Amino acid sequence: MAAEPLFGAGLWHFGQFRDRYATDGYGPPVSTLEAIDRAGQVGSLSVVDINYPFNPPDVEVEERLKANGLRAIALTPEIYTRKFSRGAFTNPDPEIRRAAIELVSEAADLARRLGCDYVKLWPGQDGWDYPFQADYKALWQMSIDAVRELAQRHPDLRFAIEYKPREPRNRMTFSSAARTLLAIEKMDVPNVGVLLDFGHSLYGLESPADAAQLILEHGRLYAIDVNDNFRGWDDDMVVGSIHLVETFEFFHTLRQANWQGVWQLDQFPFREDAVEAARAGVEVMRTIWRALQVLDVDALAEAQARQDALAAQRIARRALLSAQIES
Amino acid sequence: MAAEPLFGAGLWHFGQFRDRYATDGYGPPVSTLEAIDRAGQVGSLSVVDINYPFNPPDVEVEERLKANGLRAIALTPEIYTRKFSRGAFTNPDPEIRRAAIELVSEAADLARRLGCDYVKLWPGQDGWDYPFQADYKALWQMSIDAVRELAQRHPDLRFAIEYKPREPRNRMTFSSAARTLLAIEKMDVPNVGVLLDFGHSLYGLESPADAAQLILEHGRLYAIDVNDNFRGWDDDMVVGSIHLVETFEFFHTLRQANWQGVWQLDQFPFREDAVEAARAGVEVMRTIWRALQVLDVDALAEAQARQDALAAQRIARRALLSAQIES
Amino acid sequence: MAAEPLFGAGLWHFGQFRDRYATDGYGPPVSTLEAIDRAGQVGSLSVVDINYPFNPPDVEVEERLKANGLRAIALTPEIYTRKFSRGAFTNPDPEIRRAAIELVSEAADLARRLGCDYVKLWPGQDGWDYPFQADYKALWQMSIDAVRELAQRHPDLRFAIEYKPREPRNRMTFSSAARTLLAIEKMDVPNVGVLLDFGHSLYGLESPADAAQLILEHGRLYAIDVNDNFRGWDDDMVVGSIHLVETFEFFHTLRQANWQGVWQLDQFPFREDAVEAARAGVEVMRTIWRALQVLDVDALAEAQARQDALAAQRIARRALLSAQIES
Amino acid sequence: MAAEPLFGAGLWHFGQFRDRYATDGYGPPVSTLEAIDRAGQVGSLSVVDINYPFNPPDVEVEERLKANGLRAIALTPEIYTRKFSRGAFTNPDPEIRRAAIELVSEAADLARRLGCDYVKLWPGQDGWDYPFQADYKALWQMSIDAVRELAQRHPDLRFAIEYKPREPRNRMTFSSAARTLLAIEKMDVPNVGVLLDFGHSLYGLESPADAAQLILEHGRLYAIDVNDNFRGWDDDMVVGSIHLVETFEFFHTLRQANWQGVWQLDQFPFREDAVEAARAGVEVMRTIWRALQVLDVDALAEAQARQDALAAQRIARRALLSAQIES
Repeated sequence: MAAEPLFGAGLWHFGQFRDRYATDGYGPPVSTLEAIDRAGQVGSLSVVDINYPFNPPDVEVEERLKANGLRAIALTPEIYTRKFSRGAFTNPDPEIRRAAIELVSEAADLARRLGCDYVKLWPGQDGWDYPFQADYKALWQMSIDAVRELAQRHPDLRFAIEYKPREPRNRMTFSSAARTLLAIEKMDVPNVGVLLDFGHSLYGLESPADAAQLILEHGRLYAIDVNDNFRGWDDDMVVGSIHLVETFEFFHTLRQANWQGVWQLDQFPFREDAVEAARAGVEVMRTIWRALQVLDVDALAEAQARQDALAAQRIARRALLSAQIES
Repeated sequence: MAAEPLFGAGLWHFGQFRDRYATDGYGPPVSTLEAIDRAGQVGSLSVVDINYPFNPPDVEVEERLKANGLRAIALTPEIYTRKFSRGAFTNPDPEIRRAAIELVSEAADLARRLGCDYVKLWPGQDGWDYPFQADYKALWQMSIDAVRELAQRHPDLRFAIEYKPREPRNRMTFSSAARTLLAIEKMDVPNVGVLLDFGHSLYGLESPADAAQLILEHGRLYAIDVNDNFRGWDDDMVVGSIHLVETFEFFHTLRQANWQGVWQLDQFPFREDAVEAARAGVEVMRTIWRALQVLDVDALAEAQARQDALAAQRIARRALLSAQIES
Repeated sequence: MAAEPLFGAGLWHFGQFRDRYATDGYGPPVSTLEAIDRAGQVGSLSVVDINYPFNPPDVEVEERLKANGLRAIALTPEIYTRKFSRGAFTNPDPEIRRAAIELVSEAADLARRLGCDYVKLWPGQDGWDYPFQADYKALWQMSIDAVRELAQRHPDLRFAIEYKPREPRNRMTFSSAARTLLAIEKMDVPNVGVLLDFGHSLYGLESPADAAQLILEHGRLYAIDVNDNFRGWDDDMVVGSIHLVETFEFFHTLRQANWQGVWQLDQFPFREDAVEAARAGVEVMRTIWRALQVLDVDALAEAQARQDALAAQRIARRALLSAQIES
Repeated sequence: MAAEPLFGAGLWHFGQFRDRYATDGYGPPVSTLEAIDRAGQVGSLSVVDINYPFNPPDVEVEERLKANGLRAIALTPEIYTRKFSRGAFTNPDPEIRRAAIELVSEAADLARRLGCDYVKLWPGQDGWDYPFQADYKALWQMSIDAVRELAQRHPDLRFAIEYKPREPRNRMTFSSAARTLLAIEKMDVPNVGVLLDFGHSLYGLESPADAAQLILEHGRLYAIDVNDNFRGWDDDMVVGSIHLVETFEFFHTLRQANWQGVWQLDQFPFREDAVEAARAGVEVMRTIWRALQVLDVDALAEAQARQDALAAQRIARRALLSAQIES
């Protein structure tokens, strides 16, 4: 039987959440080291993706990661806080654009020391809110130039762009799998790829499995994040809460392509216990992994060759519903 | 062990489908009697909801229903074809409004003879397409008056309004559970209720289980239709293709209320074999019914009292995933 | 020529905004008194709706309002912060439910002293996030009971429920105009009504003008908030940025009903100057008000009697496009 | 003053509409020649895009076009009717795929004789309906291969792919601007481009002006269609009914790029007079064209350089609202 995949999580999963209503936070502040301890408590995580700068900034994370049996798979530089609220790579102020690039570069240096697999780019503030607000051509070019510069400055590292249709900006520059691939082609560097967030894909009108396939074909699928939502917003719910079948299809596609990356959580348990929410997410991923072992891939391929929806769904459902929850 | 529910289907499930692109239809024309035969072939259906007028109009359906082991649970008068395309109960032309009422009344008379449980009202053309097009107050009043008149003319029959947010009209008058209940209160008659279509509720931003609960509290849940969609349109896919968990929750809510109605399909298998699609829908409903038998309702109620999402989801998922597909 | 309406704004329009990314805020903290000064700077606002408790809590606002030519039209008790993040009126913990009621009651006492027109209820944390999480019947009853109790304790005051489909909760209890009216009927008290937020209505699949009409028919339209969005989320953009025509229709409906309330802003200018954003919103509302003066209401009524979309749209557009921006 | 653009329309705008409810059509059948006459009656159209085969098939259109002062800008082969309902270029049956290619090729030959500017490809049935139904890689490859073959067989003609997120298929292969551009790059032929339908872009979560800019940068914007919708479905309403501001921004972007194509209607006036609906669409386009003449493009560019949403919106609104409706 195949070995289980590695599981991971964004470290923010274990931090403090705020939004525009609970401005005092859905719980008390959480330091980076505390968040690492919580990630360790989950018991089944091997890696974490850590926000940079740390909180507080100058803390040493390596030992604490080790103590919790964890490794830093990536750093996520925070280019979406107040300073960058009008844009990071696309900020109208060239000094802020420069500051964004330098912050990422600083994170890249640390990622190298930590032995990370990639630096994650999540330019959530890059985009626009209103019709007529932006010169789209200029924004597109600034986005491409900034990421290319980073990739060229750090040719030994990989940069993964996490695309998303919107939020916090009403419309984002890197909004879809195809659009991000187009940008990467323009960059013409070998070390920029995509982090596909299942939920972003889902509410962006993509079929996540199809988006994964497209990125795989371009050889650019650096990482994935999974979670779930009601298909209208990035709700970051526990994996499989709503779209169990499509989550299964997504992992089936990765497995068929023999993709070897980490199965990684990006959940926001605003009102739930973070450790328990992570355990629930891993439990669902394990259920799906077991379902993959019993999925009749030959029969499925045959049904897909006929594009026979009823047969394909039955084959998938049969595997899924026989993958009983572990005790 | 509890007895299985009765299963049913809208007879259109077995008819010819058209849309604005495949104007020649997704298959050849199907007569009412042929459709009844197909419904019989499914093997697990007990009742059908039949479009009225029949096709061709003057055919006798009773014998054919009997031969297929079926009963007419309802008639659905076609108040949404060309004649009524600018509205049935809300048409600007009073003669067309009258014609709509008379067509329903004619169907009601036949429904009485056939021993139907209810007459279904689906005023899909009642609403508006453009801002400024309609006097909303007038449309609302016309809708209420027409249904009240029908209910009063046929006090021994029940009329079930099927609400839907949109399609074919861009916006429909009976658009949600709450809105339809408000209209029913205005009508002040005892024999008008609601047909809750799971898919309409889902893409109308309701939680179907919650919508069912609301209608149940008002004592007006006359019937249900089930299907599935991508939550942006009334795709009328096979039950459980996407929202297996929420479909399970929906039936759990009905069962907790001891609701005794038929579990009825309203699927549009445009490109699939209609009989097979119905069988697939029944198979999923049976899976859910088995899952209901093993669901730990006490533990669930306890989790819900704490509003503990993780525990409640785990209990539900455990039941669902242990309800293996029948061989 | 008719006198201009009064303009107002939620005081939060001038405060600090946060979200889950810019957790350090889109700008520095703003005290209640500073926010009042900013509201005054707009120059065209007559009233504000003020969050309660004030920030800092024990400040005196009356004098500062007066100095800025403003009056408190309402207080909005903050029943959606950390303490209430798992629910206010529907919190699983009865002590928190009690605390929510008491906080509103405290705000009501102050609202009385300040001569407010209504107390606004915005139970944004009342609802659910996951399928199976909640007992919908219990939540509904708790919501109704809490508001009824408040209305009965303060029979001389009016309480306006602001409904919204979702956010911060994935699904909210008071989710639509019709649903809120159903709840108000159950409460059976004369002093509970609705605050219709144009944007909430828009992205909740309602036609805002139709929703307004429905609430007006029930005699419960206590207040309105206006803003705009991309119809998929509560973006709280400047009025008329996207849906100029539907905003015009909304105000036309209010005017036809001779509704005399305040035209009130609920915008979130995350990345814009708050005073300028309010001025822009008022400018658009004034444009619409001028357009209403030249709108040919008789011709429009005639077109609507025919449900003639093309004629009605042309009449509306003609009025709108002739209402030139003031210099 | 700049010369007005040419206006055009899809000829289907003047045909018979059906959907799955009004299966007898929203009006009587309309022949190709009758539709041409109706297009002529609009009075302001210069070109039409004609469905192929004609109805009836062997009619001569040239003379009738001429008599109505019209020219065929394009042919749209009907690769989305019953025969192709399970796919045209991606049909699981290779014979149907071949038939689709041959039908387009036949249309291409006629387009050459008629002097069309492009052959339009609208593979609306190419995609999938259910999770697990399709092998995405195979579908993508079949789509690319088919269009490349057509382009290579007719190197003197141009082929314009009209992308759309969904409908009639639940998910379409050519779903967005970026995705279609990626496919075109794979094809590696000079004569395949994009037809951007404003409404498709709008409800596909794109900003249409930004999508246009992206396609322009790739030198592939062959044609546009305009209409409007409620941003959740392809409602094909009259231009500017809802999104007047974004329609204005879209045409501003085309003008800044000095794009010289036809301003073309793709409206579906199900319940309106087709000629009047086209006139309304042209009226709005002319309003926008006049607004473009008075738009302060320098001030706008300056505001956009600052990404100043309030200033940019004010400049745009000022131009739009001063472009009074013509008498």
